[in-house]
Amino acid sequence: MGYNRGVMMVRDVGEFGVIERLNRMVTGRGAGNDAVRAFPLLVDTGDDTAVWQVGGLGGERVNELFTTDTMVEGVHFTRSTTPWRELGWKAVAANVSDVASMGGLPSYALITLGLPPDTWVADIEEMYRGMLELGEEYGLAVVGGDIVRSPVFFVTTALAGVAWRPPLLRSGARPGDAVAVSGWLGSSAGGLRLLLECPDVAGEAADFLRDAHRRPAPAVRAGQLLSQGGIVTAMDVSDGLVDDLGKLCGASGVSARVYADAAPVHPLLRRQFPDGFLPLALGGGEDYVLLFTGPPEVVEPLIPQLGEGSAVVGVITPPEGAGGTGRVAVVDGAGRELSLSGGGWDHFGG
Amino acid sequence: MGYNRGVMMVRDVGEFGVIERLNRMVTGRGAGNDAVRAFPLLVDTGDDTAVWQVGGLGGERVNELFTTDTMVEGVHFTRSTTPWRELGWKAVAANVSDVASMGGLPSYALITLGLPPDTWVADIEEMYRGMLELGEEYGLAVVGGDIVRSPVFFVTTALAGVAWRPPLLRSGARPGDAVAVSGWLGSSAGGLRLLLECPDVAGEAADFLRDAHRRPAPAVRAGQLLSQGGIVTAMDVSDGLVDDLGKLCGASGVSARVYADAAPVHPLLRRQFPDGFLPLALGGGEDYVLLFTGPPEVVEPLIPQLGEGSAVVGVITPPEGAGGTGRVAVVDGAGRELSLSGGGWDHFGG
Repeated sequence: MGYNRGVMMVRDVGEFGVIERLNRMVTGRGAGNDAVRAFPLLVDTGDDTAVWQVGGLGGERVNELFTTDTMVEGVHFTRSTTPWRELGWKAVAANVSDVASMGGLPSYALITLGLPPDTWVADIEEMYRGMLELGEEYGLAVVGGDIVRSPVFFVTTALAGVAWRPPLLRSGARPGDAVAVSGWLGSSAGGLRLLLECPDVAGEAADFLRDAHRRPAPAVRAGQLLSQGGIVTAMDVSDGLVDDLGKLCGASGVSARVYADAAPVHPLLRRQFPDGFLPLALGGGEDYVLLFTGPPEVVEPLIPQLGEGSAVVGVITPPEGAGGTGRVAVVDGAGRELSLSGGGWDHFGG
Repeated sequence: MGYNRGVMMVRDVGEFGVIERLNRMVTGRGAGNDAVRAFPLLVDTGDDTAVWQVGGLGGERVNELFTTDTMVEGVHFTRSTTPWRELGWKAVAANVSDVASMGGLPSYALITLGLPPDTWVADIEEMYRGMLELGEEYGLAVVGGDIVRSPVFFVTTALAGVAWRPPLLRSGARPGDAVAVSGWLGSSAGGLRLLLECPDVAGEAADFLRDAHRRPAPAVRAGQLLSQGGIVTAMDVSDGLVDDLGKLCGASGVSARVYADAAPVHPLLRRQFPDGFLPLALGGGEDYVLLFTGPPEVVEPLIPQLGEGSAVVGVITPPEGAGGTGRVAVVDGAGRELSLSGGGWDHFGG
């Protein structure tokens, strides 16, 4: 080897540490051939999707979106908590959510499967049924992919999408902006907790939460409404409100304050976990609602249009001192800062 | 589970068996939202890339291509035969080759990495250097991706590309067409054999073959020349000439005859393996030359333009009896059919 391996392993810097290093290597790189020059890049690495400009068939300018997401067995799901059909739904839904968060509509998907040889073919077909159900619901088509042998099961979706308006980015938040979400928080995490801790519990609340975990509904309509309503800053909540808001603030060079009492918690989550709903709402991932910011006079009229659960949950604040961007303070009704152990997770963390 | 698992595992039907079943499920499915209607699908599953139509920024019609390919450690490569930088090159090159085989230019790539936590960060950076080298060579940009924890290392590339002419498909071969390739066959497989059997052998031939295995050059220029030269039927040779020609014949509803003596074998492959070059040339994969067919009067004038190694290697024949499409007969100089044990492989095979 003609280079120094150094001393760091992936476990030392974490998933996002590796991403940051690689993003620094690739950003702005890549020469232009005729294809690249014909379709100028608008959004490089670091947001929910890449974006470039193409023409519509009517001659108008259109933004094409491109994103990918992977689920590895034992890391992102287990067969005991996610049936095959729901796995198919979720594997594509995570990508649709990324497209939705840019204000786009999903169009075409490629599916890559890493399959251990002792996988049942009928299980894979069942997973595809879940993908096709999501595809019909959101109007996207699976148009190919790749199947490879692998010692561990994984599924990767690559998804193209389209936005007719400028894409919603993470980088536009300004001090004084209201911070809002497009729906209930913590329901998916509540469902996962139920599935892990008491999988046989029955009842309306349990059914609602398990369904929220297994069949999350990407916020495509919300993304359209935000884009039409003058919002320019958004992302989807995939790793948890506090964690994802920290990323949005980092990209925007600001900080934020979240009002714990304002987090929208579905009554059935509150009923099932009367003492534990708040960490789920602030830290639970995979709800796939949209997190967005904007001047209060732009944000507030949108809340009633977005439907159940949508709410203003905080405010963007100036960056706090040197290197203090991206800090998210959670405060109670009295304005006292809360200390939370949860709040998203890094899969490589110790 | 509300469905019958049946009796078949992936190992029973093989990689391509699973692909066929899933393709039957998805082909033609997927409803139209505004995005899908705006960009009509031209090529669905079953070819080297999916294709849909967009507009160029000058108002012309353009075909956008979309493909993905995965390499799993221990299945598609080992660290002993593929250094990290070359792994990065190859992981993207396989996709560029698929775009080239449709007559397209690569534009934007997303990279997904499945990383065991004890992976060295410097190794991943070295791999990215290889990707960036290929990107600069072919004018494509890496614009994002995903990093996940995984018990096995894998790398998935999703690549978008552009073709200004109608895409070259697998399905257009007709009896009487000449079968041709755009360059040398078997060099990559020869390099792999050297690396596995005698990694320390030195010399010009060994260097050439190892380089052919580690830094294959996708045939982007050849794809452009074929498309401009009136060819409509092509694919890339990734699994071996006989194997891939069988797929092309299957898609076209024809059969084929290959002249073993005509297979273009580089003098250095012949020198290194004087008794073993033919199975490598007919069955070895990953050369990433293009395989194409067309009327002899269209094919023959193109051969000199395509450069070293390009040659007519066979002829398309009518389908042989019921269900006989896709059969490839290899004949010697006297017209006698040869029986080969090699000829591509199915990773799930027994």
